[in-house]
Amino acid sequence: MSVRFGLLGAGRIGKVHAKAIGGNPDATLVAVADAVAAAAGDIAKTYDCAMRTIEEIETASDIDAVVICTPTDTHADLIERFARAGKAVFCEKPIDLDVARVRACMQVVNETGGTLMVGFNRRFDPHFMAVRSAIDAGRVGDVEMVQITSRDPGAPPVDYIKRSGGIFRDMTIHDFDMARYLLGEEPVTVAATASVLVDPAIGEAGDYDSATVTLTTASGRHCLISNSRRATYGYDQRIEVHGSKGMVAAENQREVDIEIANADGFTRPPLLDFFMTRYTVAYANEIAAFIANIKAGTKASPSGADGLAALILADAALQSIAEGRTIRLD
Amino acid sequence: MSVRFGLLGAGRIGKVHAKAIGGNPDATLVAVADAVAAAAGDIAKTYDCAMRTIEEIETASDIDAVVICTPTDTHADLIERFARAGKAVFCEKPIDLDVARVRACMQVVNETGGTLMVGFNRRFDPHFMAVRSAIDAGRVGDVEMVQITSRDPGAPPVDYIKRSGGIFRDMTIHDFDMARYLLGEEPVTVAATASVLVDPAIGEAGDYDSATVTLTTASGRHCLISNSRRATYGYDQRIEVHGSKGMVAAENQREVDIEIANADGFTRPPLLDFFMTRYTVAYANEIAAFIANIKAGTKASPSGADGLAALILADAALQSIAEGRTIRLD
Amino acid sequence: MSVRFGLLGAGRIGKVHAKAIGGNPDATLVAVADAVAAAAGDIAKTYDCAMRTIEEIETASDIDAVVICTPTDTHADLIERFARAGKAVFCEKPIDLDVARVRACMQVVNETGGTLMVGFNRRFDPHFMAVRSAIDAGRVGDVEMVQITSRDPGAPPVDYIKRSGGIFRDMTIHDFDMARYLLGEEPVTVAATASVLVDPAIGEAGDYDSATVTLTTASGRHCLISNSRRATYGYDQRIEVHGSKGMVAAENQREVDIEIANADGFTRPPLLDFFMTRYTVAYANEIAAFIANIKAGTKASPSGADGLAALILADAALQSIAEGRTIRLD
Amino acid sequence: MSVRFGLLGAGRIGKVHAKAIGGNPDATLVAVADAVAAAAGDIAKTYDCAMRTIEEIETASDIDAVVICTPTDTHADLIERFARAGKAVFCEKPIDLDVARVRACMQVVNETGGTLMVGFNRRFDPHFMAVRSAIDAGRVGDVEMVQITSRDPGAPPVDYIKRSGGIFRDMTIHDFDMARYLLGEEPVTVAATASVLVDPAIGEAGDYDSATVTLTTASGRHCLISNSRRATYGYDQRIEVHGSKGMVAAENQREVDIEIANADGFTRPPLLDFFMTRYTVAYANEIAAFIANIKAGTKASPSGADGLAALILADAALQSIAEGRTIRLD
Repeated sequence: MSVRFGLLGAGRIGKVHAKAIGGNPDATLVAVADAVAAAAGDIAKTYDCAMRTIEEIETASDIDAVVICTPTDTHADLIERFARAGKAVFCEKPIDLDVARVRACMQVVNETGGTLMVGFNRRFDPHFMAVRSAIDAGRVGDVEMVQITSRDPGAPPVDYIKRSGGIFRDMTIHDFDMARYLLGEEPVTVAATASVLVDPAIGEAGDYDSATVTLTTASGRHCLISNSRRATYGYDQRIEVHGSKGMVAAENQREVDIEIANADGFTRPPLLDFFMTRYTVAYANEIAAFIANIKAGTKASPSGADGLAALILADAALQSIAEGRTIRLD
Repeated sequence: MSVRFGLLGAGRIGKVHAKAIGGNPDATLVAVADAVAAAAGDIAKTYDCAMRTIEEIETASDIDAVVICTPTDTHADLIERFARAGKAVFCEKPIDLDVARVRACMQVVNETGGTLMVGFNRRFDPHFMAVRSAIDAGRVGDVEMVQITSRDPGAPPVDYIKRSGGIFRDMTIHDFDMARYLLGEEPVTVAATASVLVDPAIGEAGDYDSATVTLTTASGRHCLISNSRRATYGYDQRIEVHGSKGMVAAENQREVDIEIANADGFTRPPLLDFFMTRYTVAYANEIAAFIANIKAGTKASPSGADGLAALILADAALQSIAEGRTIRLD
Repeated sequence: MSVRFGLLGAGRIGKVHAKAIGGNPDATLVAVADAVAAAAGDIAKTYDCAMRTIEEIETASDIDAVVICTPTDTHADLIERFARAGKAVFCEKPIDLDVARVRACMQVVNETGGTLMVGFNRRFDPHFMAVRSAIDAGRVGDVEMVQITSRDPGAPPVDYIKRSGGIFRDMTIHDFDMARYLLGEEPVTVAATASVLVDPAIGEAGDYDSATVTLTTASGRHCLISNSRRATYGYDQRIEVHGSKGMVAAENQREVDIEIANADGFTRPPLLDFFMTRYTVAYANEIAAFIANIKAGTKASPSGADGLAALILADAALQSIAEGRTIRLD
Repeated sequence: MSVRFGLLGAGRIGKVHAKAIGGNPDATLVAVADAVAAAAGDIAKTYDCAMRTIEEIETASDIDAVVICTPTDTHADLIERFARAGKAVFCEKPIDLDVARVRACMQVVNETGGTLMVGFNRRFDPHFMAVRSAIDAGRVGDVEMVQITSRDPGAPPVDYIKRSGGIFRDMTIHDFDMARYLLGEEPVTVAATASVLVDPAIGEAGDYDSATVTLTTASGRHCLISNSRRATYGYDQRIEVHGSKGMVAAENQREVDIEIANADGFTRPPLLDFFMTRYTVAYANEIAAFIANIKAGTKASPSGADGLAALILADAALQSIAEGRTIRLD
């Protein structure tokens, strides 16, 4: 039995999920909704699905699940509406930029007993999954230190920055989730540092473009996160986990693995420089996991609670900078 | 306008091509034929296409092109039939194990003016394509030495070996084609050495499991091919091109790029160990190129002539071993 | 003209320097002093030099320079004595564990106008020097983020820990110096986190075995330092510098660069696991630089001021942990 | 008891051995002889040894062993003279370019019962020794295929080429020895191919600059050797051994292990580009092994017989090219 999907939002990330649904033998894309008719039309044509309004999808009897890819400020409302409508809900991160609003939204979801999965796609990257598997298999012993290096190829437009909630809620939030995924314990302290090194306009917009965060857990495990909105050599996405018995690391990804040698040295190409190409497989795996949860009647993961936990860490990072101190969460 | 396909043969490699056609927005899989109804049925169901006989596909007006994935001894006959029927033909390598038969088949194709593409999938591997692009861009200067290391994870069943035409026509033939693709000149000498090191049963079947071939071109360029039917660490597929200005090399591929370090050292996982997973992208690119040729009305490449050239090199390798000397082709 | 050396302390690190002096064509080891006669005798025999008391070396007319390798609590006194005696002084780090004592010692050295070089050997490692050269050559643009990963193969005896001044003054101090060497600006903030994960006895001794430090400079550059007293795979010594134009990284070192591949994967050997083998070349370069400075009549670097600056960072790290806040140095 | 050395020949390689002897605690360089007084004088001054004639060294009672670094055409005579004089003899490769002359020389050495070690320095490279150790430890199972890639950074002067005996006796001879060192069986067939791709003047001198050789042993093991007199990226010295249980490979060597990443990609420096820097440790190990043999009263290895075996393979390679066939040695 195929899971029947409605897609809310036909923008860049909507297209990614449409492709993942279209390529999944256990799913059917039934309808797409977008205020921009041309965008919805593109997807409708490519995947042979209907164009509907959000209201039509909400009340449709031929839709089991929705994927929410609309602007961030609509996420919480849509989650609530579709949870109440009895649809399984997948929502792109973040649920909301405000912790209280997220809590209220989760309350509604919980009351409906519905499924909410939050789009932390990196948990489904095969390389990072292999890191987690190595930990689970005891290959590194007890986790002691997680190092996450995450650098974007370039900064987004300042207009985007202004609406994004800032680097910690927009960019680092993925790393906070990854830290929780790998540390094996909840972070209890957050210490952050941030600068404007890439573009003064980002600073003028009240945000940072370079950040360092240190988390610790109750038993003393550390996580270091290093972020930059700039990396000339591509999308730098590395993870390293050091433990009592060893270390496991996931390497960066390239489009092709060749090396050219000459008098200047031995050169491999730059990294994949776009999140959609870097995480193509992760996005497909993510939707597949959501579908599998729906079919099995189990709760999806990462859940709304995971989205909340990452947001709380982001807020703590901002507070740490503002107050010049380590923030305790417990 | 979509290219409408008939698939002849629904076995392992047939499934690979069905998937490539199914995932290509410019193609439609219209029908599949296979003596084994269950195999054809699987594909028919997955891709929502018809099950037909070969004769039905031959005379169908809704089929533009066929992909031949039947046993080797049927290839040349089917190529001729479908070329005469006006279909564009893609055929898995080899066209035939006999050079005279291949020549006769190509004669028929030429008379019909039709398109014949031969399945040397490795030309469409992104990593090897990048090697070729680096050469074309002058990054290594004049090509001097091509080194191809190609080792299978394990030997095929002896039954298969007996029908395969032997290691040079079955396995090395890919490397002969790659040599021609990269050398920039036709090989004019062939010197081969072969042994039975992996499995005595292969020797008893009259074949070898370990082989070394050296090719040279008219201007003195070298190509070294190293083959084994055994590699404990996966499917070893490496290419290195050395030239007057530098070197370019394509590295092996893994499912995940992680490294685990402990007291035993730093360990990365074994290689992808199956040709279908190693060359997934290559197979999709190959069919896409075939489709693009059909749509543009241009001749496909690699062509029947490329299939013939590789077979002639394979025969020369066997002759070199039999006579203990270097064979000149010019 | 050969620089004539007296060696104070014939222990483990004394032997390292004796070898560096013995192998340097511009230097002669004239005498060695050690309370343990057997240790001094070993060096005297190997390098054909005299055994003398510290007093005899202090007043010797045939000694131009001394290398101080005695216990830490004797360093400052010996530096003062030998600076007053007109000898060029090389002293192993640290000058002292107390900032006030270091300042007083430097005052004496400054009054004598003598040369004092502090043993931050890592500045002379060829790989790290190449990182610095790449920065100086503009290869990474403006430095934005320095990441230093420094993990010992195993913890020292708790007795040593107790006398060491703690992880920040004993181990991280090298990383503080490296940060200053690479950042291109002085650190102005220090935020540190530390745990006991390796050995409870270290905690009982009042120290930590796992630490993370974040430094920032006035213009907002970051440095992350990650330390552990444990690494099962050898002596982990990595540096990475990220800047506006790119990144440069120095890799770990092995005794032999081989890789073994089998069904378990591709394995390279563990790292060099001893600071003396990892930094053999660095130690020789360090003494060579000291000698070159003496011959040229120039001031040695890293100087006493560098030793002091690193110690101040170590103290700030401890204060950061104690007070749960970021410490400002300016 | 220190082994007392006489050095015959104070040229480039003579200096390498002088340094190895000078740095070895079990050896003393007593005297050096060279027709060019200035060259001998340099060594005499640096290592504080006497300048003597060859005759004086031959009859000296204070000399236990000699290292022959004179021009190739003097090697066999000097070996015979010094073997008869009762000195242990280390001779740079080759003993002679003529097999008959080598046999005669070995006959003399055998009659004297003396020790003759031939300078195949690569057997003492730590990385290649680790490859051999991995084989000996059973890590790759039964050896099946040895691949040796050996490329010089640039061609020697044509004058040198003319006196060198040609690429197989001058350059490939090291690879022939390495093949024998690693194959575990004697080669019984030799098939060679060679071209002039680098410099026509080398062809005019009757030699080649690019060569490929395939060796096989009685049980069917293969060895592929790839040679070029040109490599823009440094001195390319790689070895790979494939066996029934796995593969082991030795990687190329650099002066520093850094990597710079920017929009052009990830670049590591070119390789060490001079045999003396690439094999510094190997030369020291080689002399140390010779000294250890002398002190233990055991035969040195590689011996004159090893030198002869490699020369026979070189001659067979030339014959293979001349006759266009595989040469059998058994």
